[in-house]
Amino acid sequence: MLIEPRTLKGFRDFLPEQMIPRERIIETAKRVYRSFGFAPIDTPALEYLEILQGKGGDESDRLMYRFQDHGGRDVGMRFDLTVPLARFAAQHIDTLGTPFKRYHMATVWRGENTHRGRYREFMQCDFDTIGTRSVAADAETVVVIHELLRAIGLDKFTIRINHRGALNGVLAKLGVADRAADVLRCIDKLDKISPDAVAAELQEKVGLDATSAGKILSFCLGESGASSAKDIERTLAFLGEQVKGSEAGEAGVATLAELFKLARSAGVSEANLDLDVKIARGLDYYTGVVFETRLDELPTIGSVCSGGRYDNLAELYTKQELPGIGASLGLDRFLAALEELGRLDKVQTTAPVLIPQFDASRLGDYFAMASALRHHGVGCEVYPEPKKLGQQLKYADRKGFRLVLIAGGNEFAEGVCQIKDLLTGQQDNVPFGDNYSGLVSATLTALRETYVA
Amino acid sequence: MLIEPRTLKGFRDFLPEQMIPRERIIETAKRVYRSFGFAPIDTPALEYLEILQGKGGDESDRLMYRFQDHGGRDVGMRFDLTVPLARFAAQHIDTLGTPFKRYHMATVWRGENTHRGRYREFMQCDFDTIGTRSVAADAETVVVIHELLRAIGLDKFTIRINHRGALNGVLAKLGVADRAADVLRCIDKLDKISPDAVAAELQEKVGLDATSAGKILSFCLGESGASSAKDIERTLAFLGEQVKGSEAGEAGVATLAELFKLARSAGVSEANLDLDVKIARGLDYYTGVVFETRLDELPTIGSVCSGGRYDNLAELYTKQELPGIGASLGLDRFLAALEELGRLDKVQTTAPVLIPQFDASRLGDYFAMASALRHHGVGCEVYPEPKKLGQQLKYADRKGFRLVLIAGGNEFAEGVCQIKDLLTGQQDNVPFGDNYSGLVSATLTALRETYVA
Repeated sequence: MLIEPRTLKGFRDFLPEQMIPRERIIETAKRVYRSFGFAPIDTPALEYLEILQGKGGDESDRLMYRFQDHGGRDVGMRFDLTVPLARFAAQHIDTLGTPFKRYHMATVWRGENTHRGRYREFMQCDFDTIGTRSVAADAETVVVIHELLRAIGLDKFTIRINHRGALNGVLAKLGVADRAADVLRCIDKLDKISPDAVAAELQEKVGLDATSAGKILSFCLGESGASSAKDIERTLAFLGEQVKGSEAGEAGVATLAELFKLARSAGVSEANLDLDVKIARGLDYYTGVVFETRLDELPTIGSVCSGGRYDNLAELYTKQELPGIGASLGLDRFLAALEELGRLDKVQTTAPVLIPQFDASRLGDYFAMASALRHHGVGCEVYPEPKKLGQQLKYADRKGFRLVLIAGGNEFAEGVCQIKDLLTGQQDNVPFGDNYSGLVSATLTALRETYVA
Repeated sequence: MLIEPRTLKGFRDFLPEQMIPRERIIETAKRVYRSFGFAPIDTPALEYLEILQGKGGDESDRLMYRFQDHGGRDVGMRFDLTVPLARFAAQHIDTLGTPFKRYHMATVWRGENTHRGRYREFMQCDFDTIGTRSVAADAETVVVIHELLRAIGLDKFTIRINHRGALNGVLAKLGVADRAADVLRCIDKLDKISPDAVAAELQEKVGLDATSAGKILSFCLGESGASSAKDIERTLAFLGEQVKGSEAGEAGVATLAELFKLARSAGVSEANLDLDVKIARGLDYYTGVVFETRLDELPTIGSVCSGGRYDNLAELYTKQELPGIGASLGLDRFLAALEELGRLDKVQTTAPVLIPQFDASRLGDYFAMASALRHHGVGCEVYPEPKKLGQQLKYADRKGFRLVLIAGGNEFAEGVCQIKDLLTGQQDNVPFGDNYSGLVSATLTALRETYVA
């Protein structure tokens, strides 16, 4: 009796064709994070249920995978990386000191309804700066996102930035500061429903009068859509007027002004920045700068990198106040976007070169050739069986190898090797050279020509 | 009421100081695997319980974390990467084709008894070649291990290789082939108890007569400890004599001979190879070549990379026969070994350079300097707050930054920057240059001098 091989609903196998670009993006993100001094951490997949539940009762709690372990402890699988970070920081911040800059790339699990195309297992890629309220950390977060997207090969994107203090300032002036969360929930719909409908909701659901609703809407819509440095400056001036007299509001607008200045100093292209007062994000969590990142060519895919500033990361676990700012890269959205934009290579091999086993008695020579290539940084696979050359070439084609190096009795007698380029169809005989130096340099040249072309 | 921040017994947080070298080894392993054409895959952490249990009843089964999910399904957390690979191969091999070379680095969970210093969550780093019986794949596996250890910076190690057919051949000639597993279990103790004690066990527990027990022992001990190419050749000749007449035995010895020849062709140093007939490993699983890797300087730490050839990977899930060979890197053992050998850098930062915020009004300049350095490949952190320079330098020291770049009003007026080397104590003033070109090249030089020295 065979057991049927299958995966659980909402869970995925990643085949090489999907996993190769995933690893490439993950490694690019790590490289960028590290270049700013963010350091990696990891935490357990399983935690005490009470740690993960926190105050409990919310959606994440309901979706959590939970059970009793062998020792009868109530445990859960982490559903995000923020709760583990809070627990981690409460436990280790005295050892680590502040500022503490960490990245964490790890799998999380949620018993989501898969009907909405959601997965129950996915990866989060977070980075945070903890223990400082400095705008330098806010601005750096934006610079990291900019460098990250460019490193991945995207340049048409917009990081839309806002500050929760700006809207709060307007609400304070209208005397409805206590209803900020409800107001934000309405404003958040401006992308989906008409301004009139939002105005109606502000009156019906939040209980504002028509004048206040109108002022909030004109605040949100008045200068939105700014996309050049000049527009950002004009929007900042407009916001400054609106919040005048509210301390929180003025501080928020000043922070935004400084953030844009610093980002420009770091070389962030102005075309990639926007100030959008409609951005709210994480209504109960973020307290300062908030941001989203949209791909200009694929606006419907949603934000590929979002985050913001929070006042107190770990209040459930420690009395120590830990303000911070962080962002999360949407790996699955990124991959979906790159695929849709046709920028994903569909290969199943990690090595560009295949050496077919053309003559079984020459296997030792093939091993030596492959070693010489690898020691010069060229990934190289030797086909393990002496099948017909045609079959081995078919394998090379199917897997996406770029070059095939063919040598049999005749070639070894003449001291040459055939280099076959599967992309261009070009075919050349090159001399092996001493210790395969000729072969290595011809291979490097052939690969280099690809990248140039 | 605060929730006490703590982790479950047997689970670990990884702080930057531990995580930085972990990531370095993982990335080195991936780079080496890829250079041979192994491609990454991933599978879910959770699987149907019936998939993970397989035949059930063994130790891994008992240690598995299992529960009912939201949909009432019986599920378990993977306890190794071999069972998921078998399920994966049964499900996808028609799409993937053979030979299929994959690596898989992922977390696994076992409710182990932590008294033995074992963890309940740990990472496995496996690579396998599936769908071929070729000795080319066997030899390549050994070459990969060799390249991996050298890439990690270790060169005093021995890959001890054996073939299950060799011993089986001897047993067949003694007429006790059916008791191979029991015999192997006794032989496995030769590292721990005396040959006489093993001989006694072979008689008492396996039921052999004194002559047979003696022949088996002399087979195991006769030529073991060979450590140069000459000894390997002599051991091969000795084994050939012992198994003569047994088809399986002769084939096993021939495979070993070919494996050593191919490994040498690929440049594997003979000092790193050994033929050791005492190596058994995975008594019920491996059927051909088996190997372990010992660090010569730390023999007690056990094998840091082990594996072997199996006949049929996925027989529980498919009728398709899938032979293969694979190995697994012991990440935790590697890190313990590097630490014990004093070859782990104790740093908490991923960037070598810190720019203190010496003058808050110059933050934009610091951002620009940092960007210039990053664009030349130098990781660089700007301290987020304008604290006293002494405090910022203390932070640099504690985190393990190598260089600190200090510039205040005077320096900017003169167009120079102070480079302070925290390792050597050296301090220099260098001109910024156009677009910080002078600063970049002085920084690169200072970092390069470290690596040379």
